[in-house]
Amino acid sequence: MFIAMNRFRVVRGSERDFEGVWLGRETHLGTVPGFVEFHLLKGPARDDHTLYASHTVWASQGAFEDWTRSEAFRKAHQGAGGNRPLYQGHPEFEGFEVMQTVEP
Amino acid sequence: MFIAMNRFRVVRGSERDFEGVWLGRETHLGTVPGFVEFHLLKGPARDDHTLYASHTVWASQGAFEDWTRSEAFRKAHQGAGGNRPLYQGHPEFEGFEVMQTVEP
Repeated sequence: MFIAMNRFRVVRGSERDFEGVWLGRETHLGTVPGFVEFHLLKGPARDDHTLYASHTVWASQGAFEDWTRSEAFRKAHQGAGGNRPLYQGHPEFEGFEVMQTVEP
Repeated sequence: MFIAMNRFRVVRGSERDFEGVWLGRETHLGTVPGFVEFHLLKGPARDDHTLYASHTVWASQGAFEDWTRSEAFRKAHQGAGGNRPLYQGHPEFEGFEVMQTVEP
């Protein structure tokens, strides 16, 4: 299993606008092969920004990489650059391989 | 839902030892109220470290906070300081509130 996260440092005061963009968007993930689950996450508030993260669980790193080369990916990201002023710098991508799982 | 992550910058060459500590430990999470799922995650390798993260899903932030005050928490963390040389600095904690979920 593989978790793809993008970290966004959202300018203080722009949190609602940022959430609005995400919550109002058309997601094209539901039918993508290997897609397991998506979360939009709100993290800690710092002096000059609030951390948000997109958090997508994939069956494998390969499934994630296939998606990044797909038409569904292109559609999901078209116009994303237009929201740049809501956050500082570029989103920071981190991909994680699941090494161990513990369940109740 | 709430996701508690601790980020560890593991010294290059110590990855196997770090994984061994986690994979060999006694977890006391399974029966904790509000515990949903735990993952040990391996992230990107940088010049001087490899990023790892513990990733625990909780039913709520309150369930997480109750756990941090519990005997199970104390047991899970006893002796953790002894592994300090395997990573740079302190683990960095980030708590995330789940704002949106998309499923297949």
